[in-house]
This record gives sequence, structure tokens and C-alpha cells, in this order.
Amino acid sequence: MKVLGLDTSTLMTTCGVIDENMLLGEYSLNEDMSHSERLVPMVKEILDNLQLKIEDIDIFGVSTGPGSFTGLRIGLATIKAFAHINDKPVVGVSTLEALAFNLPFNDIVVPMIDARRNRVYTGIYKWERENLITIMEPAAMEIDVLLDRLYKDYENIVVNGNGSILFKDKIKSVLNDKVRFSNVGQNMPLASSVCELALIKYKNGITDNYFTLVPEYLRESQAQRELNEREQ
Amino acid sequence: MKVLGLDTSTLMTTCGVIDENMLLGEYSLNEDMSHSERLVPMVKEILDNLQLKIEDIDIFGVSTGPGSFTGLRIGLATIKAFAHINDKPVVGVSTLEALAFNLPFNDIVVPMIDARRNRVYTGIYKWERENLITIMEPAAMEIDVLLDRLYKDYENIVVNGNGSILFKDKIKSVLNDKVRFSNVGQNMPLASSVCELALIKYKNGITDNYFTLVPEYLRESQAQRELNEREQ
Repeated sequence: MKVLGLDTSTLMTTCGVIDENMLLGEYSLNEDMSHSERLVPMVKEILDNLQLKIEDIDIFGVSTGPGSFTGLRIGLATIKAFAHINDKPVVGVSTLEALAFNLPFNDIVVPMIDARRNRVYTGIYKWERENLITIMEPAAMEIDVLLDRLYKDYENIVVNGNGSILFKDKIKSVLNDKVRFSNVGQNMPLASSVCELALIKYKNGITDNYFTLVPEYLRESQAQRELNEREQ
Repeated sequence: MKVLGLDTSTLMTTCGVIDENMLLGEYSLNEDMSHSERLVPMVKEILDNLQLKIEDIDIFGVSTGPGSFTGLRIGLATIKAFAHINDKPVVGVSTLEALAFNLPFNDIVVPMIDARRNRVYTGIYKWERENLITIMEPAAMEIDVLLDRLYKDYENIVVNGNGSILFKDKIKSVLNDKVRFSNVGQNMPLASSVCELALIKYKNGITDNYFTLVPEYLRESQAQRELNEREQ
């Protein structure tokens, strides 16, 4: 059973293919160029190099957010097209859960994605044996509020994501010895984690519909908020 | 400071570029095609996509083994050529240490690479805060001997590498609740870990010479052993 997954929720474009035991291929690029130009050629190249066709893929996995609104729309539109054309299951996974999945088997993992204005998209995750458990569902939070909560409630915290780089000094000064920062390689979204989470969900009977799957923005876009304000 | 790293010690060809905070790009393919055909085009493509030239790289990192003899020779020849042409530092890292580095911040990490004949190339590593400590230096060991030692001496073991897939049932039956198996994405060599270990060594003043750096085969090749036997 082969899973193709991708994540376009941050500046990182990452796509990959796994089977049940192994990473078959993964390609990640962290750059300003738009996802719309890079993503499909990267997927095509991985498949070509692995001598696979898109019809060989059994499950399509995608990060549904939170993250860049435009990035998420590109990722979802792409994966939904792949799944629809081939009439195969599509499985959406949380960008934050996928980030936490990069860091087995740490006690508490707190991924953070920059949400602007001193806020991060974040969640709190715990590894119990080989299972990743959600302690706090994804939310947009002020970094100070998050750090206050982490300081009060947890020891042995590992953080990753671009928010953990942006707020590194603040995180260090508040959490001190309680926190460790991810390695560079596990710091950003990885397609392999999206693939494996999608496979786990699929095996648990959870799939999405390629007509109705939508991004998880968590908060309204800047444009939508401005529109709301004008309308009031 | 930018680091380009690669690992060709197994069927996985992986190359990538990091800076001090972030993964800039990583490309990994796990397939039977020879490293000699794939590696340089993969490196060129990552650099092109990141709009970097080979002259922009400050440090070259490479896995020196143990692993596939041919794979290691291709990886080392390639990285030594890059470093030599650009007169930049080259840093060799153990394939096993790089595998353990995929799994921060687990108590005990034991990477295993298939060494044929019921043997694995292995080492025992421990995370202390954000540092990876070598407890047992890389060695070729019979899987039964290794598992016996792990059972007696350690709790909370995490294993990865192709040897851990090959011997999964045996490992489970001996170590039982003491062991957890890596996620798919952290199971095989990743260029990002080679890059970051090379950067850490470089900052600690440890570099290699692009004329004299050689693979760490750990045991003699089949051809060499046959030659020795004939000569005796």
C-alpha cells in the first residue's frame, strides 16, 4: 500500500511517498517561490524516479492546516485532483499534528507555526508508547499565553515549527530547562509524517471526501476580517 | 553558513542543504537505481531550485559509513570533489550517528544497518539534553548478541535503520516493551542529519581533509576477505 502526501502550509513545499514500512522518496524545498509553480513538478519527478505512476498510489494525504491560506488552497486543490481523477481515498491531517509526528517519542511536543501579530498556530501533543495523543486541539494563541500555560503545566517539552524559530529567545527565557528545540531536519513539515498519519487514519477507517475536504484556517483571513469590519 | 550533506550508505540516496536554523532543501530516493546515476543530478537540482551555486556552500558533509561499500565510495568521491574544487571544509560523520540524530531526544537510540549473515552495523547512542552521546562505538555485531546486550543494559530503546525493519519480529520478541520502532520518516538516513552533525563538528573545530578522508567500512569487503582466504 503506497501513500503520497504533501504539505504546503508554510514556505516549505514537501511531498513524498511511503509504503507501510519505508520512506520511498521525499522532496522538500524551503523557499519563496510559489507552491503553485513547484509542487506538481516535484511530485512528478519523485514518481518518475521511483518508476511509479499516479495510479500506483493507494491513498493521498495532505496537510489541511493551519498555515498559509494560499499554500493550503494549492495543496488541497492538488491532492483532491489526484484523488478524484484516480478515485482513491484522500485523508486530511492537521499540519500541527504532522509537525509533532516528526518527533517520536518525546514526552510533550508543541509545534508552533507563525500566525503573525505575536500569535502562533499551536497544539499540545503527547507520545504514549507509539501513539501520538492530542492534549490541546489546534488553536491560534498569543505566544505569551501559550508559554504561560506550558510553564505551568508541563516538563520535558520539545518545540518545532517556524514559530519556535521566530520566538526562540522568548521561549528559552520563559521555559528555560523545560524546553528543547527540534533538530533542523525535524523542525519543518515533512511529507513523510503527513503520509504516515494519513495511513494510520485510513487504517482506523477515517477518510475524507475529495469533493468536500476543506482547509482548516483556524481564523479568518486578513481579507475576510477587513470585509467583516467594513460590513459592520 | 550553509552546509550541503549527503548519505549513500544504503539504498537511500539523500542529499540536502541546511543553514544554521533551517532545512533549506532535502531530496531522498530509496531505490535500486545506482547512486552513481542519481546523486549529482539530485544535488544540482536542489541547488538550482534554491537558486544557490556550489560556491555558496560553506561546509560539505558526508556519511562515511558503515554501509554499502560502493555507495560509500560514490558519496565520498562526490563530496571530496565538491570540497576540493571549491576549497571548502569537508566533514565526515558516522552513518550510524546520523541515523541516531534523526530521533531527538529519545533516551537510548540504536540504529541498525543490515550487514548480511544475521549481522548489523550498529552503535548505541544516548541523548543528554540537546547532545547526542556515543555509548557504544560503531561495530558489526550479530543481531542476537546486540539484542542480548540491549535487553540486559537498557530500558526505553528506540531503533531505526534497515536492520531494524529486517529483524523487526526478532527485536520485538526479545526486547518487547523496552523497544519502540522509529516512524517511517526517521527510519532511514536523512541528509539533514548529516548536515547538522557536520555543522556541529565544524563548530567544535573538527574537519577532515578532502585528500585523505576515507570510508569507514568496519569490516573487510567480501572480495577482500576472499582474497585473504586465498592468500593464506
